[in-house]
Amino acid sequence: MNFNDLSIFENLESEVRSYCRGFPAVFHKAKDHKLWDLDGNEYVDFFSGAGALNYGHNNEKMKQALIQYLTEDGITHSLDMASKAKAEFLQSFNDIILKPRNLDYKTMFPGPTGTNTVESALKLARKVTGRTNVISFTNGFHGMTIGALSVTGNAFKRQGAGIPLNHSVTMPYDAYNGDTKAQLDYVKQFIDDNGSGVDMPAAFILETVQGEGGLNAASNEWLQGIEKICRERGILLIIDDVQAGVGRTGTFFSFEPAGINPDIVCLSKSIGGYGLPLALTLIKPEYDIWAPGEHNGTFRGNNPAFVAATAALEYWKDDTLEKSVQEKSKKITNFLQDMTKKYPELRGSLKGRGFMQGIACDVEGLAEDVAEKAFEKGLIMETAGAEDEVFKLFPPITIDDAGLEDGLNRLEAAIEATVKQKDLVTS
Amino acid sequence: MNFNDLSIFENLESEVRSYCRGFPAVFHKAKDHKLWDLDGNEYVDFFSGAGALNYGHNNEKMKQALIQYLTEDGITHSLDMASKAKAEFLQSFNDIILKPRNLDYKTMFPGPTGTNTVESALKLARKVTGRTNVISFTNGFHGMTIGALSVTGNAFKRQGAGIPLNHSVTMPYDAYNGDTKAQLDYVKQFIDDNGSGVDMPAAFILETVQGEGGLNAASNEWLQGIEKICRERGILLIIDDVQAGVGRTGTFFSFEPAGINPDIVCLSKSIGGYGLPLALTLIKPEYDIWAPGEHNGTFRGNNPAFVAATAALEYWKDDTLEKSVQEKSKKITNFLQDMTKKYPELRGSLKGRGFMQGIACDVEGLAEDVAEKAFEKGLIMETAGAEDEVFKLFPPITIDDAGLEDGLNRLEAAIEATVKQKDLVTS
Amino acid sequence: MNFNDLSIFENLESEVRSYCRGFPAVFHKAKDHKLWDLDGNEYVDFFSGAGALNYGHNNEKMKQALIQYLTEDGITHSLDMASKAKAEFLQSFNDIILKPRNLDYKTMFPGPTGTNTVESALKLARKVTGRTNVISFTNGFHGMTIGALSVTGNAFKRQGAGIPLNHSVTMPYDAYNGDTKAQLDYVKQFIDDNGSGVDMPAAFILETVQGEGGLNAASNEWLQGIEKICRERGILLIIDDVQAGVGRTGTFFSFEPAGINPDIVCLSKSIGGYGLPLALTLIKPEYDIWAPGEHNGTFRGNNPAFVAATAALEYWKDDTLEKSVQEKSKKITNFLQDMTKKYPELRGSLKGRGFMQGIACDVEGLAEDVAEKAFEKGLIMETAGAEDEVFKLFPPITIDDAGLEDGLNRLEAAIEATVKQKDLVTS
Amino acid sequence: MNFNDLSIFENLESEVRSYCRGFPAVFHKAKDHKLWDLDGNEYVDFFSGAGALNYGHNNEKMKQALIQYLTEDGITHSLDMASKAKAEFLQSFNDIILKPRNLDYKTMFPGPTGTNTVESALKLARKVTGRTNVISFTNGFHGMTIGALSVTGNAFKRQGAGIPLNHSVTMPYDAYNGDTKAQLDYVKQFIDDNGSGVDMPAAFILETVQGEGGLNAASNEWLQGIEKICRERGILLIIDDVQAGVGRTGTFFSFEPAGINPDIVCLSKSIGGYGLPLALTLIKPEYDIWAPGEHNGTFRGNNPAFVAATAALEYWKDDTLEKSVQEKSKKITNFLQDMTKKYPELRGSLKGRGFMQGIACDVEGLAEDVAEKAFEKGLIMETAGAEDEVFKLFPPITIDDAGLEDGLNRLEAAIEATVKQKDLVTS
Repeated sequence: MNFNDLSIFENLESEVRSYCRGFPAVFHKAKDHKLWDLDGNEYVDFFSGAGALNYGHNNEKMKQALIQYLTEDGITHSLDMASKAKAEFLQSFNDIILKPRNLDYKTMFPGPTGTNTVESALKLARKVTGRTNVISFTNGFHGMTIGALSVTGNAFKRQGAGIPLNHSVTMPYDAYNGDTKAQLDYVKQFIDDNGSGVDMPAAFILETVQGEGGLNAASNEWLQGIEKICRERGILLIIDDVQAGVGRTGTFFSFEPAGINPDIVCLSKSIGGYGLPLALTLIKPEYDIWAPGEHNGTFRGNNPAFVAATAALEYWKDDTLEKSVQEKSKKITNFLQDMTKKYPELRGSLKGRGFMQGIACDVEGLAEDVAEKAFEKGLIMETAGAEDEVFKLFPPITIDDAGLEDGLNRLEAAIEATVKQKDLVTS
Repeated sequence: MNFNDLSIFENLESEVRSYCRGFPAVFHKAKDHKLWDLDGNEYVDFFSGAGALNYGHNNEKMKQALIQYLTEDGITHSLDMASKAKAEFLQSFNDIILKPRNLDYKTMFPGPTGTNTVESALKLARKVTGRTNVISFTNGFHGMTIGALSVTGNAFKRQGAGIPLNHSVTMPYDAYNGDTKAQLDYVKQFIDDNGSGVDMPAAFILETVQGEGGLNAASNEWLQGIEKICRERGILLIIDDVQAGVGRTGTFFSFEPAGINPDIVCLSKSIGGYGLPLALTLIKPEYDIWAPGEHNGTFRGNNPAFVAATAALEYWKDDTLEKSVQEKSKKITNFLQDMTKKYPELRGSLKGRGFMQGIACDVEGLAEDVAEKAFEKGLIMETAGAEDEVFKLFPPITIDDAGLEDGLNRLEAAIEATVKQKDLVTS
Repeated sequence: MNFNDLSIFENLESEVRSYCRGFPAVFHKAKDHKLWDLDGNEYVDFFSGAGALNYGHNNEKMKQALIQYLTEDGITHSLDMASKAKAEFLQSFNDIILKPRNLDYKTMFPGPTGTNTVESALKLARKVTGRTNVISFTNGFHGMTIGALSVTGNAFKRQGAGIPLNHSVTMPYDAYNGDTKAQLDYVKQFIDDNGSGVDMPAAFILETVQGEGGLNAASNEWLQGIEKICRERGILLIIDDVQAGVGRTGTFFSFEPAGINPDIVCLSKSIGGYGLPLALTLIKPEYDIWAPGEHNGTFRGNNPAFVAATAALEYWKDDTLEKSVQEKSKKITNFLQDMTKKYPELRGSLKGRGFMQGIACDVEGLAEDVAEKAFEKGLIMETAGAEDEVFKLFPPITIDDAGLEDGLNRLEAAIEATVKQKDLVTS
Repeated sequence: MNFNDLSIFENLESEVRSYCRGFPAVFHKAKDHKLWDLDGNEYVDFFSGAGALNYGHNNEKMKQALIQYLTEDGITHSLDMASKAKAEFLQSFNDIILKPRNLDYKTMFPGPTGTNTVESALKLARKVTGRTNVISFTNGFHGMTIGALSVTGNAFKRQGAGIPLNHSVTMPYDAYNGDTKAQLDYVKQFIDDNGSGVDMPAAFILETVQGEGGLNAASNEWLQGIEKICRERGILLIIDDVQAGVGRTGTFFSFEPAGINPDIVCLSKSIGGYGLPLALTLIKPEYDIWAPGEHNGTFRGNNPAFVAATAALEYWKDDTLEKSVQEKSKKITNFLQDMTKKYPELRGSLKGRGFMQGIACDVEGLAEDVAEKAFEKGLIMETAGAEDEVFKLFPPITIDDAGLEDGLNRLEAAIEATVKQKDLVTS
């Protein structure tokens, strides 16, 4: 077998495959912020598995823990039976993450993917309130199964459902088409007006920074306003922190700077630490009214993921990582500001915060061109937004200065090449 | 930390947890058909992770392949980028499983869980046909996200949705309330009668043996009849082989003995070999009309699972395993027949086939009592059916004769104890 | 203006028009069982406005009452304000119809059409039970608005909705594909089995004789069985007596011979007596939990219809009409039996009961040919069934012997002509 | 029988009755703008059957036409068969209404109520476009059957559905929470943004003046903007003119001043002239793609209503009525402005236009108090708005100056009494 080309995927894998079209190489080895393909080409990773690899690839400490666990024949798959690995994770997560942040949540393992935690959160909010409607927000992305897709904004993804998507209403996200106050007023008026046609919702579901939707970062004021609307009306607040959580914005939970206290939190992607499938649904104890087994799933007990996840929590025992992410975030911001000034052809504006920043290009197709050129320069990076109008920097949050520098240099080279090429074409 | 008790789970994990209530022990080590808890107690596993551990726990060959892959820093998480591990799996799956069975499918990785593959199958069938309705069958179980739950029969699980479940119609499964011919006629009449109120469906979705629904095994005649109904009317046939597939019934796919050729096949659970999350959706090439990225998910590229899955396929290079499963299945059948005769108090009748057999007890609560007593005897086993009326034998398909014997002996001890206890109570 | 042709309708009316295509004449005058078109051609009416003209056209007594009411400037339109005409109707309906039959219902005026009463009944049943699912039956017809259409069987009508129709499940009507006991068992099993996928319903809705669905008449045994299923499980029983009620089957309510006591009864069509729009929803007092105005509509207070309806109730003060209908029904049955024997080419079988009988022809298109020929012979008659396979006799229940004779003669002439013509074609 | 009290309604009619609670009298006679109860008390009608009696009660010319038609035994009920009365109506409607306004519509008779025409319009728009979503607007009211209720804003009415209402999205009506431009931009952004979560709609449905929703009158600019949004995106524009049409705002169609050309127009209420049930759906010929009978109903052929409706059209042969309505509308406006100045305690602001004006009172319960006092003064008048915050003047458009004066005087007396009473209570 020769795996140096993509023909095997073209022949045997479904047409639904997508990233392998944008990054046409067969990858084999990976470490921290680097990947190598079968021809030995090296790539810098500013993609991080769409946020599932916040600690980079194959983190050495987690790797050793995993190998030891496998070697000892620790139980691998345990459904939702009790296991030592799970107990250790629950205890560490409570001690290292929840308690120091004054958060009191019961932890549910809803199945190992982001869409599973969202589906479980929606079910529970509907059960708690006895209402069916859920408010989601423009450009929100919450998953691909029917429940989660119903609260997702993207038209192309929605179309794929094959059935009308119901039981949800979209409201404008912060700064969607007005300032923060206007957006909050809009929501309030629709909820409070008995003639608005918007049924009283069970919950609001939102991301504090919308990863897929174009790196839209909500202001603290908006998040606080939304929480207040919920509190005053008995509506549950669900924060989907699947992509923005686990340190990507500079704090463990993305909502910490806003000082809000969600009723339900959805976590997945990087919570597993090593890229292994794991998801959590955090629930305020008073809302944990599930009957046993009312939601379940086969892969709730992915013990290798518990082992890696527990090892990953070591990073949060002090504030070293947080501080590092916050400092490097400024570097990224500065770099992107420089880019928009130096290359006005981008017609660029900065989006996002922390380690989920990028540039929205007001030129059709340009962000995609930048991502394509970046790949040619050995940088892996994707676009976001309903029209793929944003190129998106998602380095591992553990990346060192040299690695970040290297990636940013490659990105500038890609931007330069894109702008030049465009120039040749249009002139 | 002391993990010898369950208090940590009671304090920190959601009320939704279920198996840990039926099997109150904290498990740590596992190998093949055995598990050990933290106190060193040994258990025989007749549960197999609800069908996710058909090859038992921590299979040594797969383990070595996994450790080697981890050690070499093979890429762990790759979304749907091309990777060497994925290429090897695709090629092996095609060469070892599909080609020898004259099956021509494109493989889709829909996200790593059973409910993901079901959701993707329903979406695709609706896209292909332009219809919204899907026919499912009584006591079918297909998953817990809204799309999959809509085609699931269990009232308790459905109730958990919190919204009405729509876009689906339930028809009687084989032998539900009549003989095979009657059940097929029923389906035909509802589909063909323009006054029946049943809209022309995009697809039928069914399990050949219903695992959760009570070990109902469809006859070949019924499966062929269902396929014929689909073919004649342009309806897609989706076989959900998540639980019954990967050798559990004695052949790789559960539908092989019936000689049918489904349009879409859902696989998960044991396809990953080692209990790691993995799912496949197999699609006839002519129906593989997905647009790139129309369905996606973060954990589609679980490379350790590809590595273990590829290693697991070695079992299927010749018919040794198949023959062994088929022979041992007879032993199980014989044993269960003996039990119903020896213990008429069970009011038992045999259910299922292959390594998914059990006894339906026509006495309320009795099957649950047997499972409970079995746990006391060191045997892990669950119940099935809408009223938990069936106790269910799900040993690993790789179990050796001694292991099977051991488990069956423990089971008989449990049955005896249950019957006796009941006797004392009722007399 | 010349109205002797249909061009004005072709030019100005929507393509949705239908009966004017089957009965291509411009009608002007009508009296009792006769109509005349603009050219003075006389027609016998075996159609009765699809059951809205049980007392024939322009009944003289009702006409005088109407003219008097108009002349006196009695209030015409009163929404749901109290009016003398409405009070008189309520009192008469209670005294003449309900009390003598030991029925205790509150009367609701839900808007003047059949689909309005059905929608109100479904809303109320859902409110009373807190459940969303409603069980309807194969070949049931309940109306064309989305709520009523969701419980209607006809595929063509359903397709017209333009959205998937949900919140309902179809079950087999009596003798649909088995004997009465088998059909009842089927329903019971689906309702009682917690794994069937059929959610516990708020209500059953059914017609005792299905008018549009092909003149299927339920047996008393089936109706009693259905009522029992409802009673034992707290499910509401809604009888849609819009077409079969008001004497058409020989008793005022079609369900009287079965001795059942529905929770909600839907009446429209002939309840207005003179063909004026009126509908009632009869509700057991204990279920009359509507909030004021929770269901409303502009034409609930159609006072001319109250006036005619009250006059029509005079027919029910003794059993003269009932006896007459029952006797003439036998004549119709005898005639139809004769027809099937005399014209075996019809491959006919008798359907329905009372003044809603007909012949199902097991030859494609034949029933429609008979209706077409009948029109040529001056007899107005329509077909029923999902494939229009039944020709349907719907004379006014007040028709005299001569009129009935006349109509039957014309029908036989039409049958003879149809059979002959077919003969010529096929030989 | 003594009908001087309401006990008969309390005993025999459903709790759902509402207007008879606000207007506790048993009405018997009515003429033009006056009603009399059984005790002979006279009332001025500023309610007009919620817009169904634009020509007042028992208009003498229509009455004579009706009596003549009845006397001649003209056909009363004809389903959708061709009749002389219907032909005459179609021709007159085309000649007198459509042609002079350069409107080219096919006329559909969808069943005789407002909710029927709305349901038919929604079905057709979905059929034409192949889309399921429909955009409705805040505080819109379109009917009480499930399809129409799904596009209705009122929370209390929606709740009554008993099922979640889907397949629709509410957008802000003109001036809902911003100026006209802001509201149009909002709609545009949600429709055009592929990430908004609002699926491309089949149609917009709206009232130009919202009767039930609180007498909100859209500006011409907004209506034109909405039409432009529809045209540019292939969305159908449905104007629900059931309440605002047939002269109530001063022109036959309410949308004439805006110069827009809707794709579908819904008419009912006053189109029947005399308060008899009748509804029309007007369809641009290119969208009249109904299959025969795809939507139907029993009372589509209400010939007495055709007769009265044709007689009513005489009013539109010249512009006398239009001019009179427009002049009297100014009087009403002036009167209401006076009231808000003279009685600042009302905290009143003017709403609506033409003969559908009123005052919104920013004091809880005050508008209802005014309506109650008005009744005591012999004036029949209702409230509107989600909180019943508007008292609403709906005189017949044919009212003479003396009648209008009389009504306004009674209204002022009611306002004065309300304000005084409130004063006593609060001081």
